[in-house]
Amino acid sequence: MADRGRRRIPEATVARLPIYLRSLYELSDGPGTISSERLAEMAGVNAAKVRKDLSYLGSYGTRGVGYDVEYLLYQISRELGLTQDWPVAIIGLGNLGRALANYRGFMARGFRVVALFDADPAKVGERVGDLEISHLDRLAGLAESLALAIGVIATPASTAQDVADRLVAAGVGSILNFAPVVLSVPPHVSVRKVDLSIELQILSFYQQRRPVPGSESNTAS
Amino acid sequence: MADRGRRRIPEATVARLPIYLRSLYELSDGPGTISSERLAEMAGVNAAKVRKDLSYLGSYGTRGVGYDVEYLLYQISRELGLTQDWPVAIIGLGNLGRALANYRGFMARGFRVVALFDADPAKVGERVGDLEISHLDRLAGLAESLALAIGVIATPASTAQDVADRLVAAGVGSILNFAPVVLSVPPHVSVRKVDLSIELQILSFYQQRRPVPGSESNTAS
Repeated sequence: MADRGRRRIPEATVARLPIYLRSLYELSDGPGTISSERLAEMAGVNAAKVRKDLSYLGSYGTRGVGYDVEYLLYQISRELGLTQDWPVAIIGLGNLGRALANYRGFMARGFRVVALFDADPAKVGERVGDLEISHLDRLAGLAESLALAIGVIATPASTAQDVADRLVAAGVGSILNFAPVVLSVPPHVSVRKVDLSIELQILSFYQQRRPVPGSESNTAS
Repeated sequence: MADRGRRRIPEATVARLPIYLRSLYELSDGPGTISSERLAEMAGVNAAKVRKDLSYLGSYGTRGVGYDVEYLLYQISRELGLTQDWPVAIIGLGNLGRALANYRGFMARGFRVVALFDADPAKVGERVGDLEISHLDRLAGLAESLALAIGVIATPASTAQDVADRLVAAGVGSILNFAPVVLSVPPHVSVRKVDLSIELQILSFYQQRRPVPGSESNTAS
């Protein structure tokens, strides 16, 4: 029981928790409870999977009533560590880095961008939002005092591994990589890779299966 | 048999196909065959799921040998419709839109950005990469001649629904939405929403479960 926080949750479940969270936020001023069927529909999985996933959080809902939305939001947020403060640094302030620095979705979910780094001397000192761009060489010195937890790599592919090495050396435990390259890091460091083309590929699948305009008989598929 | 292209593939499988594809591309100069175990490890799922997913494509591998990488790449690409040409328009040329317009990952996977639209007259006529920004009012007139298949919405939340309505009216069948808002579209239109904070939330989960520095006994979890 005391081991609750260290219980093993399957990776696939972890990856679905943010989807449930987003679905619950989208309810906004919706009902006070939600059924596993409704949540499943919003999240694009089946209801049995929702119930199984939430059972790892010790959440079982009430038969015929469902889950209390407020409490479920709290449970998922706590499980994801969103009730804690995770200082974030963005490295590489090209268009993508700037877009990320200004992205409200980060702050809204408990992530605080506290530093911006770039290797280009021409960018150093420039302000983006509330922050000033620091030279990449200052990363090592600032990481500890800023308590950096997450490094977001938005550099070109050619320099991403060097940046990752610097983040690891500075004690940053998590990396979100937008550069189209596979990073090598020690096993105690977590890396998530964002590949923006994945969503386009999923759209492509459905696009090619659209009914041909005018052939109504196809629409039932 | 003739109905192969219309066979029902579960949504969750469709969502994993791009992950398999990315994993196979990461093999680069790797071996000519790959086991379901290795592919599962790279994609972060279990081997039984890989075999089940690939069986929907009619791909079963060879016992003790695995799957032929080249052929698997072809099969997944074909299933995802990546062997076809999908013209893409980006709407909203702020930092995110510009980053997307310059994102090589799109082109590399068979998506061709053919048009950029913005409602801001100050941006119209400006070049981003090889393209010139057109006024949003021109979307309706250009969609058919460009054969637009996918619209990428990179506008602020407040205007995203208006843009979605224009895309739908122009006959664009797929929308990739980066704006932090839920869009209403008719059932024949596919929408994928990109929420960049989801990956950060997954990192947060693992970050909070990292062993405390110095307490080596925790690392086995």
